[in-house]
Amino acid sequence: MKELQEIYQDFAKLEGKEISIIGRVRSNRQGKNVCFMVINDGTSFDDLQVVYKEGIDGFEDGTKSRVASIVEITGTLLLTPTKGQPFELSAHKIELLDQAVESYPLQKKEHSPEFLREIAHLRARTKTFNAVYKIRSELAFAIHKYFNDRGFIYAQTPIITGNDAEGAGEAFTVTTRGDDKYEKDFFGKQSTLTVSGQLHAEAFAQAFKKVYTFGPTFRAENSNTSKHAAEFWMIEPEVAFSDLQDNIVLIESLIKYTVNYVFEKCDAEFKFLDANLEAGLIDKIKNLVESKFKTTSYSEAIKLLQNAVKNGHQFEENKIAFGLDLATEHERYICEVINQAPTFVIDYPKDIKAFYMKLNDDHQTVAAVDLLVPGIGELVGGSEREGDYDKLIKRCEEMGIDPSSLDWYLNLRKYGYFKSAGFGLGFERLLMYITGVANIRDVLLYPRTPNNLLF
Amino acid sequence: MKELQEIYQDFAKLEGKEISIIGRVRSNRQGKNVCFMVINDGTSFDDLQVVYKEGIDGFEDGTKSRVASIVEITGTLLLTPTKGQPFELSAHKIELLDQAVESYPLQKKEHSPEFLREIAHLRARTKTFNAVYKIRSELAFAIHKYFNDRGFIYAQTPIITGNDAEGAGEAFTVTTRGDDKYEKDFFGKQSTLTVSGQLHAEAFAQAFKKVYTFGPTFRAENSNTSKHAAEFWMIEPEVAFSDLQDNIVLIESLIKYTVNYVFEKCDAEFKFLDANLEAGLIDKIKNLVESKFKTTSYSEAIKLLQNAVKNGHQFEENKIAFGLDLATEHERYICEVINQAPTFVIDYPKDIKAFYMKLNDDHQTVAAVDLLVPGIGELVGGSEREGDYDKLIKRCEEMGIDPSSLDWYLNLRKYGYFKSAGFGLGFERLLMYITGVANIRDVLLYPRTPNNLLF
Repeated sequence: MKELQEIYQDFAKLEGKEISIIGRVRSNRQGKNVCFMVINDGTSFDDLQVVYKEGIDGFEDGTKSRVASIVEITGTLLLTPTKGQPFELSAHKIELLDQAVESYPLQKKEHSPEFLREIAHLRARTKTFNAVYKIRSELAFAIHKYFNDRGFIYAQTPIITGNDAEGAGEAFTVTTRGDDKYEKDFFGKQSTLTVSGQLHAEAFAQAFKKVYTFGPTFRAENSNTSKHAAEFWMIEPEVAFSDLQDNIVLIESLIKYTVNYVFEKCDAEFKFLDANLEAGLIDKIKNLVESKFKTTSYSEAIKLLQNAVKNGHQFEENKIAFGLDLATEHERYICEVINQAPTFVIDYPKDIKAFYMKLNDDHQTVAAVDLLVPGIGELVGGSEREGDYDKLIKRCEEMGIDPSSLDWYLNLRKYGYFKSAGFGLGFERLLMYITGVANIRDVLLYPRTPNNLLF
Repeated sequence: MKELQEIYQDFAKLEGKEISIIGRVRSNRQGKNVCFMVINDGTSFDDLQVVYKEGIDGFEDGTKSRVASIVEITGTLLLTPTKGQPFELSAHKIELLDQAVESYPLQKKEHSPEFLREIAHLRARTKTFNAVYKIRSELAFAIHKYFNDRGFIYAQTPIITGNDAEGAGEAFTVTTRGDDKYEKDFFGKQSTLTVSGQLHAEAFAQAFKKVYTFGPTFRAENSNTSKHAAEFWMIEPEVAFSDLQDNIVLIESLIKYTVNYVFEKCDAEFKFLDANLEAGLIDKIKNLVESKFKTTSYSEAIKLLQNAVKNGHQFEENKIAFGLDLATEHERYICEVINQAPTFVIDYPKDIKAFYMKLNDDHQTVAAVDLLVPGIGELVGGSEREGDYDKLIKRCEEMGIDPSSLDWYLNLRKYGYFKSAGFGLGFERLLMYITGVANIRDVLLYPRTPNNLLF
């Protein structure tokens, strides 16, 4: 038995040879003299065309095979370079292994993304979702390979956590009870789903220097937008003895390596998405990989945005001043209009960033970095961490965080600590960017959003 | 600045060269004429010995550096093949970058695993845990690499689920409420943490043929044993068009490949664990990788266990009959005494296995497989899946599962389905086996067990 993937790899050598394959019927039509069946076994993006004629063993099986049915075909591989596909299989035996019901929901017509979300367990069989999930898988592997090749330790930080310092109010509670008597609960206290593995990873960076997380994270945020899901995957590297500039170098290197890796691995998939989902996708990806990312300080960005307003540009939020939490429209203007390149914005006001970010000498800004990318805005957020115990405690207090709830984390600064930096990359956001998928629900396998928990 | 890992790779070339390194002090002692400091930057299991003398730049910094402090050393690399380590660094400059407090909890003496669990954020700095987490990281990578190399798609199945068919009563509830009015909850219904990604993965195997999950899974089981944790990672491959025998081949291949991969990658770590944690560990691993796994049917195993009892062997559970759910003592007897090899036990009684397993022609057993391994018993559990819709419904009903709660899964059998098989491998269980760690709490980064949620 051959896999379709193998046949695509070796078709020149297989010319004229007899092969057998099991696959799913994608289409099946009877011509006057010859019948055509298109099948795929899931191992290749491109399909296999099968031609068969009356009189072959199992002709009946062939003609009655409905879309989605499983068939076993034995035939001779013929090269057909002039026919739009490099080869086809001339069948001399067909066996219908399992007949699909007539009411199979994915018939050949086009389906809306909304309809396909209702059959998320089947949508990977469509070309678009097949391409997206294949790219998803290769992108995940590229991320692991990037870090593993460079000596980073994969830190599988916990999903259930007792830290509520970050994302308070946006965390799901994990419980075995039907009430709020958490002192009697499984863990003897309230537990939540993690919103970030960063704090746990930081501790491991003190042991291994270079670590990364790659796992699911959660937000109980009641936002029904195309960018938000309650469950999504994050990558959070952390490097000890490294500063903001090292962090910037790492971000650019990671993005370029992983995007280039999948781009080279998934040629057929990207061509399909470029033709069917986002025209110009391939050029966009090439641009990302080949461009030199730029760096602009937050203060500089504010001035540039103020100038844009002065010169007549209209933002939805037109009051631009130091302290503004940049919205996507501002972020996109910075990287699309001003820099015309992916842009690192650094040194944000401390009041709009997290307590653990290193306070700069100006006492107003922190050593934070966001990577802004044309088309979407923020793709990555990171920082150098505050290494000074006393300053860190002060920042906790300013932000209304009780230091005693995080003493294990804060104490890392007492046990030998010299610079640490890291960032968070939303896996689905990167995936949306490189696939052209507009809604996060369509890059997740089974999306979880408010009032939506199918499957 | 050099990383220790690089120095170990290139030390022959670096002889006599000046290098700089930042690292953490592991020990520091003053001799009469010369001082010795052992440092490590986290990139290498083996440490770096630094020798320094009065008069060098920063001698004061050197002598006052406490254990765990961060130092920057510049010096000349000297080869010292007769001294028990291949090289040392003769320092001519030392800078104390961050002084650790005197009360640093990890001083040089031995610490109990129980104490170290209370400082899980620091324990990766000890040799034993450093070795375990490094092996953990490489084992995770080996698993991804094994599947990716073979064309499997990584299916990141959901963590939050609405399916309660499996593991009912053992699932954590996920909620934003403090009561049980789940119809008003975030998802508009009760949601739980996944106990397995298998059902979701099965649907994806129908699109890609070969898929695998590798993610966290959860059990709200109130068992305080050395083998149980509330949160752990599972690997669940699923292959369409494949049967029980294909499944067995895949299990053996995956285990041997991944164990061999980490064994070759983590030489220093395994030597340390063999010397300090489990004597004979390396031989055990070599045996696993080189042995031919055997297969015994459940019915045959029952007869062999009955014979053992007849011949005077005492099990805690001595009533051996068809239908018995084998305990670890039985499993170990089968693979350690009878077969003296890792053993696949197949064709279990249907009543002690899950509803989705394929009913054999005898109508009494199912096409299940467990891999039993000397020393621990069950390491892997899997099966060929029931492909017949009507039989599957009947099995649901026999097991008290409401088919309407799983219609999306059951319906896969209507939409073209011909054989599918897969298995679940507990990541931590495999890791415990190959590291010699006796308690699952000590292979997890931050373990979660009943009444225990630190960090």
